[in-house]
Amino acid sequence: MSPVERAQLAMVLEVTSFPKPGNVDRCHDYSDTRIEHFLASAIFARPALEEAATGKGRIGEIIGHAVRQTNVHNGGNTHFGAFILLIPLLYGGDIEGAKKAVIKTDVSDAVAFYKAFAMTKVRMNDTDELDVNDPNALAELRERNMSLYDIMEHSAANDMVAREWINGFMLTRRGADMLHQIGPGRDAIVEMFLTLLATEPDTFIIKKFGRNVAEDTMRKAREVIEGRRALDTFDAECIANGVNPGSLADITIAALFVALGEGWSWDS
Amino acid sequence: MSPVERAQLAMVLEVTSFPKPGNVDRCHDYSDTRIEHFLASAIFARPALEEAATGKGRIGEIIGHAVRQTNVHNGGNTHFGAFILLIPLLYGGDIEGAKKAVIKTDVSDAVAFYKAFAMTKVRMNDTDELDVNDPNALAELRERNMSLYDIMEHSAANDMVAREWINGFMLTRRGADMLHQIGPGRDAIVEMFLTLLATEPDTFIIKKFGRNVAEDTMRKAREVIEGRRALDTFDAECIANGVNPGSLADITIAALFVALGEGWSWDS
Repeated sequence: MSPVERAQLAMVLEVTSFPKPGNVDRCHDYSDTRIEHFLASAIFARPALEEAATGKGRIGEIIGHAVRQTNVHNGGNTHFGAFILLIPLLYGGDIEGAKKAVIKTDVSDAVAFYKAFAMTKVRMNDTDELDVNDPNALAELRERNMSLYDIMEHSAANDMVAREWINGFMLTRRGADMLHQIGPGRDAIVEMFLTLLATEPDTFIIKKFGRNVAEDTMRKAREVIEGRRALDTFDAECIANGVNPGSLADITIAALFVALGEGWSWDS
Repeated sequence: MSPVERAQLAMVLEVTSFPKPGNVDRCHDYSDTRIEHFLASAIFARPALEEAATGKGRIGEIIGHAVRQTNVHNGGNTHFGAFILLIPLLYGGDIEGAKKAVIKTDVSDAVAFYKAFAMTKVRMNDTDELDVNDPNALAELRERNMSLYDIMEHSAANDMVAREWINGFMLTRRGADMLHQIGPGRDAIVEMFLTLLATEPDTFIIKKFGRNVAEDTMRKAREVIEGRRALDTFDAECIANGVNPGSLADITIAALFVALGEGWSWDS
């Protein structure tokens, strides 16, 4: 399996694993974003993933290409966060390589990334100074000579995907380690996801609903693990309220990519 | 969307559409063949699909490449019949081109195809003279100078996928026409599949269980369409008995490929 196929397989395995509380999975859609949108994006992103795997070019631009290539259906942005993680991982080959690659980004990556961001409907924090929809933001980025790494550092407090760039892909590593520990096959993905959900507040949920809802979700995930709450009920409740832990889904994809590269078997 | 992406999307849309009586779908696996095997094959077949889309090389060999590229997981052969249809369609660009391409096959295509066939666990008819597991079969093919088209003609009576080569992709065309008529979105795939199931005996079922079971399946599909039988019950009954209309699934993929190329929208 080539690294690009591995990235595509990670995207496919993440979205089909189930039950995955709150997110689109094999058994649940949202009315505006359905499983086939995620699967189509895994296919359509291939040229950008190939570009990343060459280890050449600018990471910010390649993320922009991935967004453009997948922004062709009505399902909205499906994998923006996943691309932010997968593209450095493909570029560098593994976590060590990705850590080196993200540090080398510069202001041109930052500008390309902002242009890509503006194409998506991903929400920023109210507190963000650099609003992607503000035409002055690009000039400001250039004036301050901020690299894409700087942007991620700026966002790390409120965005766990950005935080992966800064902390050496810590949760990606933890998720991959969990997969190795749990063993082969798709059920391991659900168990890993649920463990992350029980231990890390999802920043996508925080941005959407505030910290209380994110912490409530963690608590309920712990109750599921401890056998005090039914997984199905928890899943249905999240779906009904639109509580989708999208950032942890992105990190799950990155963890799958890494674990598959280290010999974890999806095919039990 | 490139023709290769269209072929991959057709494979993804077919397997995720549901409920699709008897086959692996979004809500049902077989214990040895699961949805992730089908999705992985859609990713892994890409090099062979790219090769086909160039319109150069030998169709029999390209089918062999697709089988080898996807024969890497424990899910068994997932798309052999689909490749027999998709590869000429990609090679020729559309049905008209595919009809010209299949007629041009020669004995080297036949030999490559037999070697690919021997790698799969697809069953032949008891009455077939040219058993792929018989080492003399290849010598016999060469001696008789049989083309791959001749092989398909030989198999057409008992195999509806082979029959597509001979009758100008008739059911592929009918399926695509149905999609246009029904309209956009995934529910159209289920309706089209069910209509084919009600009107055509699936030759995969005939090979596995005999003609009576295939005709019984058609009758039940008609009852579902007429509202006299519940789709869910029919699906569960097929799954429980291992009655999987695999050849109609292959034709559904080919029909999706053609319809998508003619502007049918998967994304309602």
